[in-house]
Amino acid sequence: MKGAKVRLYVDHPLGQGQSVALSREQAHYLFGVMRLRIGDAVLLFNGTQGEWRAETAEAGKRGGTLICTKQTAPQQNPPDLWLLFAPIKKARTDFIVEKATELGASRIQPVQTEFTNSERIRRDRLQAHAVEAAEQCGGTFVPPVADIRKLPELLEDWPNDRELFFCDEATVDDPAASSLEKSANRTLPQKAALLIGPEGGFSEAERARLRDIAKTISLGPRILRADTAAVAALTLWQSRFGDWA
Amino acid sequence: MKGAKVRLYVDHPLGQGQSVALSREQAHYLFGVMRLRIGDAVLLFNGTQGEWRAETAEAGKRGGTLICTKQTAPQQNPPDLWLLFAPIKKARTDFIVEKATELGASRIQPVQTEFTNSERIRRDRLQAHAVEAAEQCGGTFVPPVADIRKLPELLEDWPNDRELFFCDEATVDDPAASSLEKSANRTLPQKAALLIGPEGGFSEAERARLRDIAKTISLGPRILRADTAAVAALTLWQSRFGDWA
Repeated sequence: MKGAKVRLYVDHPLGQGQSVALSREQAHYLFGVMRLRIGDAVLLFNGTQGEWRAETAEAGKRGGTLICTKQTAPQQNPPDLWLLFAPIKKARTDFIVEKATELGASRIQPVQTEFTNSERIRRDRLQAHAVEAAEQCGGTFVPPVADIRKLPELLEDWPNDRELFFCDEATVDDPAASSLEKSANRTLPQKAALLIGPEGGFSEAERARLRDIAKTISLGPRILRADTAAVAALTLWQSRFGDWA
Repeated sequence: MKGAKVRLYVDHPLGQGQSVALSREQAHYLFGVMRLRIGDAVLLFNGTQGEWRAETAEAGKRGGTLICTKQTAPQQNPPDLWLLFAPIKKARTDFIVEKATELGASRIQPVQTEFTNSERIRRDRLQAHAVEAAEQCGGTFVPPVADIRKLPELLEDWPNDRELFFCDEATVDDPAASSLEKSANRTLPQKAALLIGPEGGFSEAERARLRDIAKTISLGPRILRADTAAVAALTLWQSRFGDWA
């Protein structure tokens, strides 16, 4: 019995001796693509109950059963950090979801701004990307991908106890833009959100509203693409206040 | 005469009144794709002489001429920060080059490690990606993409005055891994390099050699893909010691 070479997210309770029924797609992946046999081990997680080693008890073309034998990692949730972003081109939006999952965002919220390039998202497809990224990065948490919301609505009932940072290309070389370090208010609870603007930037009206309730952060002297800005902002927050610190 | 809607890298001297002859490809892009006419403005940079506004003096299918009318930005070089990385899948390698340019690396050095997934790179193609990223991000510098080198050779004659940091998935949750802040030696000149390992990590021999001459840095509790690690490491270094500080 070798080590597990597959790490799989399942929407199913996990626990000692728990049997997990596989869907047709999961069975195809495990037994068709990855060629697992009876007795082979898999690592499972469901987003709330840590990571479990499970063994293949039944393997078929249309289904199968795994039995949990041992917990291999406790549940580890990321800090309470939301990523808000305006969807861009398909590949780059997928990328943002993948990276946000790896970097430990707790919730992914697409927002529609005045200059948002793409107003529709396939929420289910983005959620599947988050699942795949969690399988890959060894995390036990999968950030929910929310339905797209309009920025004004989102800001209207913005919770007082959640610090909002926005990354705006207009702050490039703007001396008023603070570093994350300086602008973060350490007396508030550690709930935060990072908002990444669309490729066209925020409108003047949006910027005015944001300056009222959010803090700007600077991401250096070059104009970053939205996907780069998302990764950079998540990295800075995590390394200073999050679970990298 | 409207504002310039195209920003173009040219391998040509720039200066007041300088005329710049266009290649066939550049002419096709400017006049065929972007539909520029005589008198229309373009922003030009060549990596060493800042950014210049130029006007179209001649426009043809196979060539054309621009005349520099005004310097619009001084030359701005990034800090002396190299990015060393083991090439991975094509799209993700392209991505690393694009992001390294946006985030302000001064040199991009592909390295061949024991577990490197892909040992060949198309240097010219990667260089073209760096040029495109520089055009996009408003930078005036294009980091050179070097030919791939073997890691042991590179480490053998590693310059004493360049701080090397390596990001290793084996340091995930390793208490010996320092934060960038703690591990950076501030008495050395500000020459640095970040080394990102391949998807399979470094070999034991490589890790031993690296521990001798390099400092490890931690990128949080999840295992990051190589492309994510590159962006995260560049962000951390730039925000603490580079031109974002």
